[in-house]
Amino acid sequence: MGSMRRIMLSVSYDGTALHGWQEAEGVRTAAGDIKEGVRQLTGEEAQVSGASRTDAGVHALMNLAVFDTASRIPPERFYKALNTRLQEDIRVRASMEVPPDFHPRFTETIKTYRYSVVNSEYLDPTRRLYAAFCGFPLDEERMARCAAELVGEHDFASFCAAGSQAQSTVRTVTSIEVLRSADRIDIRVSGRGFLYNMVRIIAGTLIEAGRGRLSAGDMREILKSKDRRRAGMTAPARGLTLEKINLISPGFLLTEGFI
Amino acid sequence: MGSMRRIMLSVSYDGTALHGWQEAEGVRTAAGDIKEGVRQLTGEEAQVSGASRTDAGVHALMNLAVFDTASRIPPERFYKALNTRLQEDIRVRASMEVPPDFHPRFTETIKTYRYSVVNSEYLDPTRRLYAAFCGFPLDEERMARCAAELVGEHDFASFCAAGSQAQSTVRTVTSIEVLRSADRIDIRVSGRGFLYNMVRIIAGTLIEAGRGRLSAGDMREILKSKDRRRAGMTAPARGLTLEKINLISPGFLLTEGFI
Repeated sequence: MGSMRRIMLSVSYDGTALHGWQEAEGVRTAAGDIKEGVRQLTGEEAQVSGASRTDAGVHALMNLAVFDTASRIPPERFYKALNTRLQEDIRVRASMEVPPDFHPRFTETIKTYRYSVVNSEYLDPTRRLYAAFCGFPLDEERMARCAAELVGEHDFASFCAAGSQAQSTVRTVTSIEVLRSADRIDIRVSGRGFLYNMVRIIAGTLIEAGRGRLSAGDMREILKSKDRRRAGMTAPARGLTLEKINLISPGFLLTEGFI
Repeated sequence: MGSMRRIMLSVSYDGTALHGWQEAEGVRTAAGDIKEGVRQLTGEEAQVSGASRTDAGVHALMNLAVFDTASRIPPERFYKALNTRLQEDIRVRASMEVPPDFHPRFTETIKTYRYSVVNSEYLDPTRRLYAAFCGFPLDEERMARCAAELVGEHDFASFCAAGSQAQSTVRTVTSIEVLRSADRIDIRVSGRGFLYNMVRIIAGTLIEAGRGRLSAGDMREILKSKDRRRAGMTAPARGLTLEKINLISPGFLLTEGFI
């Protein structure tokens, strides 16, 4: 038995059949499946801890996770071994050794989420699992103007699910873009951290804006009110994808698959 | 009970959970589910007949179907009623009345299929249901040059699954395009009619070409040989989507959703 090493994983998953990232009794989760994969490979009961605890139904192109192992499997090859133990809706894209005290949740990061809306007469069945649907015409330029009001450091209490345990509701959104490509609108939000359901409430509110029901001035007032009831609905989980987690000066060189 | 009318449907579906278009005992199919929907709405045992009998796992943005009914539901509203009886992986996009002797399988059409390949180091789980995967770099320009050899009227015996009942293996491909967008390659094939598995065998052969294993001259020889063993593998069903069926001079005006 070798000494313990900490391994970091870059993980992508289709959230459709998963009850989110975080391990939970009796249901499939991304962390639970990865933990079981590590157990099959090493015999160890590792704790698999993620950078972002995505909700049930939310997808990820890149989430980060760490776990400790005494296994002699070379760290940079661990992901290939792990993929042989995982169902095809979870793929580990890369693995590397990191310092034993490193954790992606307790280091500075920029996370980028995409919220996708199909804006057409009907939701194409082949896109239904990865986008929300809006049958009313949406004005993406109005959405972009409203989105711009959210950029910067603000108290996002109005965009936080009731019952959140967050000590402070102040967060920094570094950028939001709203892009239309044919009948699809992508809302891409980056920031240092997000409150519970924050991106889905932003998406729901911007959809209201796109229907002409909210102006940029209304967005400023919603922020100021710190009242969840003033913002729009929480848009469905299926439209949300965690696209990327950028580690800001982690203190070691990142390998491909983490950049 | 009114007089019988023939209704045409424009249908899209995610083929992942379906055993193809054609009704079959004990499994979910697109035609079977639509037939059951019509039964629930009208009480009638209609025969639902499609323009294209797509295989298990193949998707459609637009297939056409006809059935006869004595129901008084207005033909152009039938699709909305039907959607309330269907699971969300099948959506009827439009409905209209057509002449009682009209059948989309026995009229001139141009069908367009798209075959999608994700060409990257790993298959993103959120795209795995709608694309095949190729981890080797593919040269899309070489694929396009090879594809061009197939355009026109040819004997496609080499591109027809063994055991096909087709009387003639001569078909006309009106166009093929090979387009790369980032790590995705779309092969789009249009023609008046296709042999069994023809588009999937064309895709499998063009993937071989993209890996550098076949040249445009090889494509000509594969065609000439009329030998299925000379062409590439049958690419997986999940990558194939029936995008469109154009009715050529049907003899009546098509409404939106059929154009």
